[in-house]
Amino acid sequence: MTYIDLNSDVGESFGNWSMGDDAAIFTSVSSANVACGFHAGDPSTIAATCRDALAASVTIGAHVGYRDLAGFGRRFLDCSPTELADDVLYQLGALEALARAAGSEIKYVKPHGALYNTIVHHEAHAQAVIDAIVAFGSQLPVLLLPGSVALAKAEAAGLRPVAEAFADRNYNPDGTLVSRREANAVLHDAATVTANMVRLATEGTIVAIDGSVIPMNAESICVHGDTAGAVAMATAVRQGLQDAGVSIKSFV
Amino acid sequence: MTYIDLNSDVGESFGNWSMGDDAAIFTSVSSANVACGFHAGDPSTIAATCRDALAASVTIGAHVGYRDLAGFGRRFLDCSPTELADDVLYQLGALEALARAAGSEIKYVKPHGALYNTIVHHEAHAQAVIDAIVAFGSQLPVLLLPGSVALAKAEAAGLRPVAEAFADRNYNPDGTLVSRREANAVLHDAATVTANMVRLATEGTIVAIDGSVIPMNAESICVHGDTAGAVAMATAVRQGLQDAGVSIKSFV
Amino acid sequence: MTYIDLNSDVGESFGNWSMGDDAAIFTSVSSANVACGFHAGDPSTIAATCRDALAASVTIGAHVGYRDLAGFGRRFLDCSPTELADDVLYQLGALEALARAAGSEIKYVKPHGALYNTIVHHEAHAQAVIDAIVAFGSQLPVLLLPGSVALAKAEAAGLRPVAEAFADRNYNPDGTLVSRREANAVLHDAATVTANMVRLATEGTIVAIDGSVIPMNAESICVHGDTAGAVAMATAVRQGLQDAGVSIKSFV
Amino acid sequence: MTYIDLNSDVGESFGNWSMGDDAAIFTSVSSANVACGFHAGDPSTIAATCRDALAASVTIGAHVGYRDLAGFGRRFLDCSPTELADDVLYQLGALEALARAAGSEIKYVKPHGALYNTIVHHEAHAQAVIDAIVAFGSQLPVLLLPGSVALAKAEAAGLRPVAEAFADRNYNPDGTLVSRREANAVLHDAATVTANMVRLATEGTIVAIDGSVIPMNAESICVHGDTAGAVAMATAVRQGLQDAGVSIKSFV
Repeated sequence: MTYIDLNSDVGESFGNWSMGDDAAIFTSVSSANVACGFHAGDPSTIAATCRDALAASVTIGAHVGYRDLAGFGRRFLDCSPTELADDVLYQLGALEALARAAGSEIKYVKPHGALYNTIVHHEAHAQAVIDAIVAFGSQLPVLLLPGSVALAKAEAAGLRPVAEAFADRNYNPDGTLVSRREANAVLHDAATVTANMVRLATEGTIVAIDGSVIPMNAESICVHGDTAGAVAMATAVRQGLQDAGVSIKSFV
Repeated sequence: MTYIDLNSDVGESFGNWSMGDDAAIFTSVSSANVACGFHAGDPSTIAATCRDALAASVTIGAHVGYRDLAGFGRRFLDCSPTELADDVLYQLGALEALARAAGSEIKYVKPHGALYNTIVHHEAHAQAVIDAIVAFGSQLPVLLLPGSVALAKAEAAGLRPVAEAFADRNYNPDGTLVSRREANAVLHDAATVTANMVRLATEGTIVAIDGSVIPMNAESICVHGDTAGAVAMATAVRQGLQDAGVSIKSFV
Repeated sequence: MTYIDLNSDVGESFGNWSMGDDAAIFTSVSSANVACGFHAGDPSTIAATCRDALAASVTIGAHVGYRDLAGFGRRFLDCSPTELADDVLYQLGALEALARAAGSEIKYVKPHGALYNTIVHHEAHAQAVIDAIVAFGSQLPVLLLPGSVALAKAEAAGLRPVAEAFADRNYNPDGTLVSRREANAVLHDAATVTANMVRLATEGTIVAIDGSVIPMNAESICVHGDTAGAVAMATAVRQGLQDAGVSIKSFV
Repeated sequence: MTYIDLNSDVGESFGNWSMGDDAAIFTSVSSANVACGFHAGDPSTIAATCRDALAASVTIGAHVGYRDLAGFGRRFLDCSPTELADDVLYQLGALEALARAAGSEIKYVKPHGALYNTIVHHEAHAQAVIDAIVAFGSQLPVLLLPGSVALAKAEAAGLRPVAEAFADRNYNPDGTLVSRREANAVLHDAATVTANMVRLATEGTIVAIDGSVIPMNAESICVHGDTAGAVAMATAVRQGLQDAGVSIKSFV
């Protein structure tokens, strides 16, 4: 039987500020990347998110990021590898305590925003993230971009790297993402996105921006829940996958 | 054989700012109240402090506080009990991850600053702190002021409350601390302090501000390491206790 | 000719988090309480808000608060009067620079959230806020609750206190606000609210919770823009006032 | 008559954390780079620093930095130019209010740490800093590294760029600083440093790391006050300059 994971960012509210429709997204995904307080997510938001994830039978992952609330973790921060490793470990522990109090636990790690993008190529930051996950001691799988430096380092460290695809992003023929600086980096048509993700799940290929069919090994698909349109697309992708006989289930 | 615990606050540096002479204080105390990042202590400071505590065979406690770096956790913050409980749980988890990576673990909790003082009398905040410790799940003992509301709530929750005395503080005849608003709230003479603490450890009494001898049940003595004078007093107290045949050892 | 001011909180987004529909509220109010970065409002949000206020011919006020982003300034923080005065002065200066760069300037001050409520009765914090405004040097009027300690202190300091009424709040017969802990503290019917505010503007009275008509001297009416319903109510209040021949204009 | 400016970073304490011996350094320098709260300096620290600067007849400059307390502004932060410009403007306004309340005002700007180093070469961030200073509206001079991109942009914007030399740094024969990654980047001998700075002030040249004498146009010399040794060196430099007939005075 064919199956794939759907993951989305959740728990990104902070204090009085709301972000995303987590309740809606929990009905679509199998894995929840829960903010850990450094780019978003105050402790009470995190606690409630962990309870909601458990109630929805969604797997909890740690969405660790740079220490930058004002920038939502979307700005590269040139911290030292030691600072980064300790920051990540701190976040993992904090989330783990709240997840355990909710009756669950962290099952994987997905770096957030600028950190995710940086460790595609930044050797020292990639190693720091992997070091922190190893130090945490639970041999957690790590959701990463296929071909990234961090993915190689995860593998070298004996962790399980889990490659993911982005439902709403266009891909170059070489399998890299079309840069967000390009006009058509992002896909907006739910039917197109869904068809492409069904192809991914059933055949291990996707249609690139030039129309060519390229191989794409991904165990998870990233969808978004921060806008009404994003939630609708996530719902469509899930439904399309199920209609094609693909089960949605966590990779862990 | 007679013994008592000596505890002190450590790990209170933050980024480029140093606080206290932790290396010196580690040679005197048996228990280290390690800052958890909300009133002080960045992740790398915490990590290094945990390693140093382990190297010095000093027990690690979680020094949890209000979320207030600018106020060093010394200002009452009227957060909701839910916010406070989640903030404490977040801090416990964060420290635990760093302590475990260092090869150790949290063995007790001591609330910090305004939180410590508030839960002497504030029912809801006291309960929130105890709830968080229970939720953390390790049945950690809690260092508290004798007679405090929090101490009673710890006991009611099945946790072990550990009463502490303050080496350098004067006590009223009823066993309460002389307010810091009074001129002689703080003791500065190491010999007087040491003699009083030897009395505490060997007889379970101290000399109050009016010269009367009063009972004081305390399993731990709090000393400070934030000034050269404080470190010297901590050293004197330790030496005086040992000279009087009192062993210095953790209460856990 | 009769006129009154309508004020609302704006600029309370922070980084990636949005708050309120400022564009909509700018079409209704004459005065904008702009967040200054301590409870909400990052510098770029503040800058854009000042430009938008100027474009909408809305007067800019400084919405100063306790230093507490995680609590949105809604939690009492027991800082020292010196800390509070300096925190307020810091916020005033920061907003002034951004307002001036936008071609405008701060014309009044309105304390936010817990600070607003605290200085209704807290002598030291009330004095600290007033001291900061005096120190800022522009003799800015201060929007405050009628009968508050801060209002008296503003007057004593030679500042102009401006009393405000809350459009959507029920009042006790003695002119105080019905506590939010009571079931009917908040009014939800736009017609009732509008009629009451027209009465306020034209007769200087309002209908209290028990149906009695009581005097209310207020130069400004506080409306909200954080929900669609709030914006609709603000629009209704403005329209109702104008229909009754009351002009909406700033008190400065 | 010959004269030169001595500048140093001050006001870098934060809450309970102290940094540097500002009182000592105020006896040596003519210009004080006052932290503005984003890399260091809480409002009360800033206020006290402004009062002390005025009392010591030391000119106040704004030491603006990236928003990064945990990193003390020493880590590059990849914010957008708009964010950076608004962050700088916010800091300028905040400091100006506190300086004015102290009876003084900002007379120049000196970017701090990673921001200072970044705008040596980073076009967009350099422009953002200059834009913010222009927007602030006081035509403030800017202390910068000779040859930096920011210096050229300051000049192009009609601001007065003020080049500075670093007393305790070694220079390459081409006038650039020896990288801190090199063993002898920093000079520790007060006599050598003093002689070099006297040469700078009197002849407009310094001795580079290879012993060659190179031209150095600098109107200010940066000294440090964060360690006892640094203060001693600052004192020595001042004394040496005065003994050589060089007056120490602000460049504004």
